[in-house]
Amino acid sequence: MADLATSLRTALDGPYAAVRDNTRDQLVKTGVLTDPTLSLDEQRTRTREALMALASTGLPAAGFATAHGGEGDVAATLIGFEMLVHSDVSLMVKAGVQWGLFGGAIENLGTERHHNRYLPGVVTGDLLGCFAMTETGHGSDVQSLETTATYDAATGEFVIDSPTPSARKDYIGGAAHDATLAAVFAQLVTAGPGETPESKGVHCVLVPIRDAAGADLPGVTTSDCGVKGGLNGVDNGRIVFDQVRVPRENLLDQYASVAEDGTYTSPIENPNRRFFTMLGTLIRGRVSIAGAAGAAARHALALAVRYALERRQFGAPDSDEEVLLMDYRTHQRRLLPALARSYALQIAQNDLVTTLARIQGGGAPADPKEQRDLEALAAGVKAYATAHATSTIQECREACGGAGYMAANRLTSLRADIDVFTTFEGDNTVLMQLVGKELLTGYADEVRGLDPVGMASFAVSNAAEVVLERTPVAPLVARLRDASKRDGDEPDLLDRGTQISLLTDREEHLLETLARRMQAARKASGAEAFTAFNRAQDHLVHLGRAHVERVVLESFVTAVAEVEDEHTRTVLDAVCDLYALSVVEQDKSWFLEHRRLSVGRAKNVTTSINALCERLRPHARDLVDAFGIPDSLLEVEMLDGVE
Amino acid sequence: MADLATSLRTALDGPYAAVRDNTRDQLVKTGVLTDPTLSLDEQRTRTREALMALASTGLPAAGFATAHGGEGDVAATLIGFEMLVHSDVSLMVKAGVQWGLFGGAIENLGTERHHNRYLPGVVTGDLLGCFAMTETGHGSDVQSLETTATYDAATGEFVIDSPTPSARKDYIGGAAHDATLAAVFAQLVTAGPGETPESKGVHCVLVPIRDAAGADLPGVTTSDCGVKGGLNGVDNGRIVFDQVRVPRENLLDQYASVAEDGTYTSPIENPNRRFFTMLGTLIRGRVSIAGAAGAAARHALALAVRYALERRQFGAPDSDEEVLLMDYRTHQRRLLPALARSYALQIAQNDLVTTLARIQGGGAPADPKEQRDLEALAAGVKAYATAHATSTIQECREACGGAGYMAANRLTSLRADIDVFTTFEGDNTVLMQLVGKELLTGYADEVRGLDPVGMASFAVSNAAEVVLERTPVAPLVARLRDASKRDGDEPDLLDRGTQISLLTDREEHLLETLARRMQAARKASGAEAFTAFNRAQDHLVHLGRAHVERVVLESFVTAVAEVEDEHTRTVLDAVCDLYALSVVEQDKSWFLEHRRLSVGRAKNVTTSINALCERLRPHARDLVDAFGIPDSLLEVEMLDGVE
Repeated sequence: MADLATSLRTALDGPYAAVRDNTRDQLVKTGVLTDPTLSLDEQRTRTREALMALASTGLPAAGFATAHGGEGDVAATLIGFEMLVHSDVSLMVKAGVQWGLFGGAIENLGTERHHNRYLPGVVTGDLLGCFAMTETGHGSDVQSLETTATYDAATGEFVIDSPTPSARKDYIGGAAHDATLAAVFAQLVTAGPGETPESKGVHCVLVPIRDAAGADLPGVTTSDCGVKGGLNGVDNGRIVFDQVRVPRENLLDQYASVAEDGTYTSPIENPNRRFFTMLGTLIRGRVSIAGAAGAAARHALALAVRYALERRQFGAPDSDEEVLLMDYRTHQRRLLPALARSYALQIAQNDLVTTLARIQGGGAPADPKEQRDLEALAAGVKAYATAHATSTIQECREACGGAGYMAANRLTSLRADIDVFTTFEGDNTVLMQLVGKELLTGYADEVRGLDPVGMASFAVSNAAEVVLERTPVAPLVARLRDASKRDGDEPDLLDRGTQISLLTDREEHLLETLARRMQAARKASGAEAFTAFNRAQDHLVHLGRAHVERVVLESFVTAVAEVEDEHTRTVLDAVCDLYALSVVEQDKSWFLEHRRLSVGRAKNVTTSINALCERLRPHARDLVDAFGIPDSLLEVEMLDGVE
Repeated sequence: MADLATSLRTALDGPYAAVRDNTRDQLVKTGVLTDPTLSLDEQRTRTREALMALASTGLPAAGFATAHGGEGDVAATLIGFEMLVHSDVSLMVKAGVQWGLFGGAIENLGTERHHNRYLPGVVTGDLLGCFAMTETGHGSDVQSLETTATYDAATGEFVIDSPTPSARKDYIGGAAHDATLAAVFAQLVTAGPGETPESKGVHCVLVPIRDAAGADLPGVTTSDCGVKGGLNGVDNGRIVFDQVRVPRENLLDQYASVAEDGTYTSPIENPNRRFFTMLGTLIRGRVSIAGAAGAAARHALALAVRYALERRQFGAPDSDEEVLLMDYRTHQRRLLPALARSYALQIAQNDLVTTLARIQGGGAPADPKEQRDLEALAAGVKAYATAHATSTIQECREACGGAGYMAANRLTSLRADIDVFTTFEGDNTVLMQLVGKELLTGYADEVRGLDPVGMASFAVSNAAEVVLERTPVAPLVARLRDASKRDGDEPDLLDRGTQISLLTDREEHLLETLARRMQAARKASGAEAFTAFNRAQDHLVHLGRAHVERVVLESFVTAVAEVEDEHTRTVLDAVCDLYALSVVEQDKSWFLEHRRLSVGRAKNVTTSINALCERLRPHARDLVDAFGIPDSLLEVEMLDGVE
């Protein structure tokens, strides 16, 4: 019979137990690579070497299509990559750049000639590349990038150029040193015979940037971003292009092509839809970061909970021993709700990865509606998981006091390394707004491409059409929710249906009121319209978050119900309650203001959370052991005295 | 006529304009010392050199009594030290260790022979020392330190010893390399003729640890904490003592002495009171950290606001230009309430420093009640200001996106350097509980020394006696509060009296209900008593915070009223409103649950905050310029294009 930690791990690993176990074995061999005593150059060298070693494990290859020498197992790569965090966050990011972003762009935006020519080297790591999207002037607003790729029909070449200082590619992983080929996102400017040249929007072109000796190629000027707040194993850099010429074939032409004479064609008519279709194939970057953030938070919790089960402070009653930190309410409050959220997020991440693999893994074009839902969810979960990681690791650091501040105990480096997660691959505030916009369904194609101003003038012609067009809800979830609705009594906070209803109801209310505000805004124009939108911005962010929290809860609820062992299910049930009630508590004033909770019930939320913390306290060690982080990766100075 | 920034600066500088201006001039000469490209050794060397340079400016000397070669101007040193953060946080901490903690221990706990022998070298920096309080096993719980100083009457010496591995002194600034003399906190064990040796509690003894060549002295083993999450200019280390003998004269004997025959005497009978009196003289450490945290938050806000006034993203209506980040509501929401809190804290810090200088600066023994109030407030403001700095700098980092993550832009290093502030000089959670305990007046001497268990069995014999015995409230504050009470209408959230009443009322309610819980707990004993206390722990923390927020608001209100220029006062008024309402918003569910706010009024809190953000938006640059941080210390890469 399995012990509690093992059976909880089974629930957390979900369908990915095998790949997780393989990666665990691999990680034990690799060991902890993060080392705060290394210089910048030494860190980069170590990460580059680890990247090459990783290539040889076959994990990166697995994510590519069988036709391209892989196994077509996107899920395996995503799950495996997130676990690299336990060894070194820089390695995870470096791998994500090489195989996820750079390799992913070639595979998903390119066509056969690109696949044949580049992917073998990408997979083995013989061809190191970078993903040159962000510019000094524009990050989250990708459609406004300034770099140009102008087609010259006379020579059959694209001319890549950085026309302004703010067009400089910036913060690009690999650009400072390692990358020889760049996937450059640029305004594609071309003209067919008799046409005036104009930008067809942002497209991706492959541009060699360095020779084999590492020197910049003619017209290319790279520079080094130097020391960062973390992730110093990744060589982020800048690239400036001065009229660099590449052959026409270097355009990644899955969704758009330029004929020899400059004629532009695309199977996707609507420029907005085309742009988002291209970006959509790159969705795994966000999914990957969400997973890595989750893993980092789990790692920190495992360290902090172990420490709290060892460290004693202040005298205990009727005993010579002092009280364990874990026995203090304030300490339980710091760690256990964050732990519950980590459980919820890991299970939701499993589901997200499964959905992504189903929609994108088959080779067939994705259903547009499903693809959009997936994009919104990936954006939302990325924002939610990375914010969770930042606050949780910080809480863990503080919960370990002075010991937590010693670099040898890894909490500060984990925190520093994942810090940028909240703003790269899309700024969290922008992403949560994206989620909100996606929920205005029926209008998605129009709305998703809109900047704040367009959004403001966007007219919701019929508020009734703006309803929550939910991704299919598991029958269990629907049943629980409906059961709670039939109940006439005061809602029981520990009833799963009540919890689901509270979160669903909040999301629906926020969506409806947002639609009404947008409708009112359509009468305005110009500056007024901007003001109207701007004033609704926090509403949009709130809606995005409410959506993510509802979906995450539904994933968790479904997973709990699938656990067969009763004791395990009971414990997981309590963790799920703790997650749900923590979500409600964090937004308690909203529930009170909108009369979803009475004053008495609201106070009950807090007392229930306290009671759940006490109930889960005896299982604290099992709950973090269930994360399945190999012991050898949790060996730090402050835990020297353990067991 | 002064411009807005200048007149706001006058209000913020308060009585300390002269010392601030001097320090500003000094800082411009020093420049920014933080440099992320330096190795650990290079950072330490640079900070040590800067420390010596600082000694020669006379700033450190100013804080010592005139009898000890100083100017008796505690306030000047505290204000000056906090500003060092603009140049380098490590330097501030290193200076705080040398002159605040180490020098302060000698001056305040020692007597004439210690002053004469050591202080001249301490002041000039010729004698570098460390403050060896924290041990591996005990930090915030100082009374449980394990290091022993056992008096040997046969030789007239104290024997300093680390009896267990957890007795090792740990995280001690200066112990890794620079310090030659340590102020060691240890259990003083002695016996007069015919007595059994016993510990008289924790006392401070001076122990030489290194010779002039830097080698450990016999019986002393130092080691290096190595790389930390920040503050790498400070050489934190560990010290283990193996029966190290020092002369009897090395006991700092202001509050307790040991006669040649081992007889222990102290002018303070009650051991708890004695202990806290000793610690109380060291209060400036906390005040200093609170000030430094405030300065760090202001520095980050100055950077992030300047960036937000330069950086544009997404198209603007009826314009070719994109929208400034500062014009987005979400961005205003991230930065402006934090800015308002920074204003409130700087003004409250001025008052705290003034009170400290008045109580402790005169040479006369402090009034016990005043001293206690000061200690509670220093603990509370330290916890409040450091938590504020951590979250604010993080918000600023994220508000600058990828640029914020580049070490050259200083936000990540500021964040990393001040990270430990939330847990050193007393863990924030423990400190906020201390504030709560202090508020149970009439019992302070009994309560303050109690550990959680003692606290649990502490009996409040008469709840009526447990009332808020407030430090004298400024007449203006009392008048405003009373006026709002007389008003029968629905409270106006922008009315100053209403704001004061909301915060006062919350504090009083929390105190009364806590007293009732403690009273109920006195019937319990042992494990039950612990449980009763433990369940009240978050209540205690909440009370501590509520107290600090009320006191900070009162400082702010008073300062606003003193501003003569009407335009300046109007702006500062709005900042004060924003602070007050942000405090209410953060705890909005409490106000709703306790029916201090109706649902309608609660929604109004949020809309009022949004409106205040819009009102203050045009003044954003003036508001951060008023911090008076020299431009040269704000020059970073991401602001290259400014002005």
